[in-house]
Amino acid sequence: MTSNKKAIVVLSGGLDSTILLYHVIKNLNRDVTALSFEYGQRHHRELQFALKHCSLLNIPHRLMKINLPASSKCSLLNTNIDVPHIKDVLGDPQPNTYVPNRNMMFLSMAASVAEIEEAEEVYYGAAEIDTHSGNWDCSLSFLHQMNQILSLNRRKPISIVAPFIELSKVNIIKLGDSLQVPFAYTHTCYRGEDKACGKCSSCSSRIKGFLDAKIADPLEYEISIKWL
Amino acid sequence: MTSNKKAIVVLSGGLDSTILLYHVIKNLNRDVTALSFEYGQRHHRELQFALKHCSLLNIPHRLMKINLPASSKCSLLNTNIDVPHIKDVLGDPQPNTYVPNRNMMFLSMAASVAEIEEAEEVYYGAAEIDTHSGNWDCSLSFLHQMNQILSLNRRKPISIVAPFIELSKVNIIKLGDSLQVPFAYTHTCYRGEDKACGKCSSCSSRIKGFLDAKIADPLEYEISIKWL
Repeated sequence: MTSNKKAIVVLSGGLDSTILLYHVIKNLNRDVTALSFEYGQRHHRELQFALKHCSLLNIPHRLMKINLPASSKCSLLNTNIDVPHIKDVLGDPQPNTYVPNRNMMFLSMAASVAEIEEAEEVYYGAAEIDTHSGNWDCSLSFLHQMNQILSLNRRKPISIVAPFIELSKVNIIKLGDSLQVPFAYTHTCYRGEDKACGKCSSCSSRIKGFLDAKIADPLEYEISIKWL
Repeated sequence: MTSNKKAIVVLSGGLDSTILLYHVIKNLNRDVTALSFEYGQRHHRELQFALKHCSLLNIPHRLMKINLPASSKCSLLNTNIDVPHIKDVLGDPQPNTYVPNRNMMFLSMAASVAEIEEAEEVYYGAAEIDTHSGNWDCSLSFLHQMNQILSLNRRKPISIVAPFIELSKVNIIKLGDSLQVPFAYTHTCYRGEDKACGKCSSCSSRIKGFLDAKIADPLEYEISIKWL
């Protein structure tokens, strides 16, 4: 009775993509291979969590590597550049945490793997709300146009599916809670250290989401937060 | 007086992309970085030619690697599968030499490098005539739609330029001849051995192009060809 459609899930090991992974397996009943990318990210610590969930869920995991230039002005690629505090990037149309063309790279490689492995769908955890931080490649327009291009491949058009594209962070977290996602095994902080800084825009968005959802985040933060 | 616009040229070491490299440098006066990809191609021999031209032209070269699944049904990725003879693929809408989503992977990575290195353009050597072998990602529609997507990045829209998209092989070769491109240092054969087989669809298209251009191809072929 369950669908066994094959799907690739782009899994960073972050909060959204991890919740997506559980959603695609448990709610959508897909036969999933998870795909993670090592692209020189300063928070490569996230990848150990990607692996952890694949092991908990007993699904195959594939790691692809992208050797980007080290000279980048992006603080997620170049550790000589500091990750900014949220208060210093409010109103900045594209803070230095933007990674050039990241989603198109991930999705084009995921679509290639999907074709090779005879999957029909690629899932990714983009949320349009993230376009506020200059991530144009999290937008609905980007998603639609990617699907248009891939439909030119008449023999094997791969669908890109982003079930969270119009969800708020609080609703994504509530979905994760309903799926009993072990939130402790997700990495969010841009600084990529053991404890989350609680001050970068990525931490801020996560903290606000958990507070709004009235759920205690099990992560250890450098700052003290009263959850409930 | 000359333009020094920075550009990335996607360079496989094959005939078209090599002629493109000389065209972009000598005719368009761009300040070029060449970008090649190692993606498990059986004809990885082409990469030594890519390097050779960068050294001859004294320009920087970057190599990016893509670790695709080895289990592919593509004869260019899986050496357990034979490269077909041209006569066996005539009329086949997508022969096994098609590499899944190759151009979108190359161009998305090239656009990322262009953003990082502050270039405005990415050149690639696609020719629409190659869509006949199932390469939907060599089409004009693909090119237009890629540019549409990249224009969503309002802060740094990268242009993808394919000057050969509507040219025939014979006209590409004549252009290369006018630019004195050393054709001996280009690799075309899908089989990827020292001597070109002369029988795969890639060799066939090259041979026909040189014959029509009335230019002798300096490559060594396994079959004997009377050029002039």
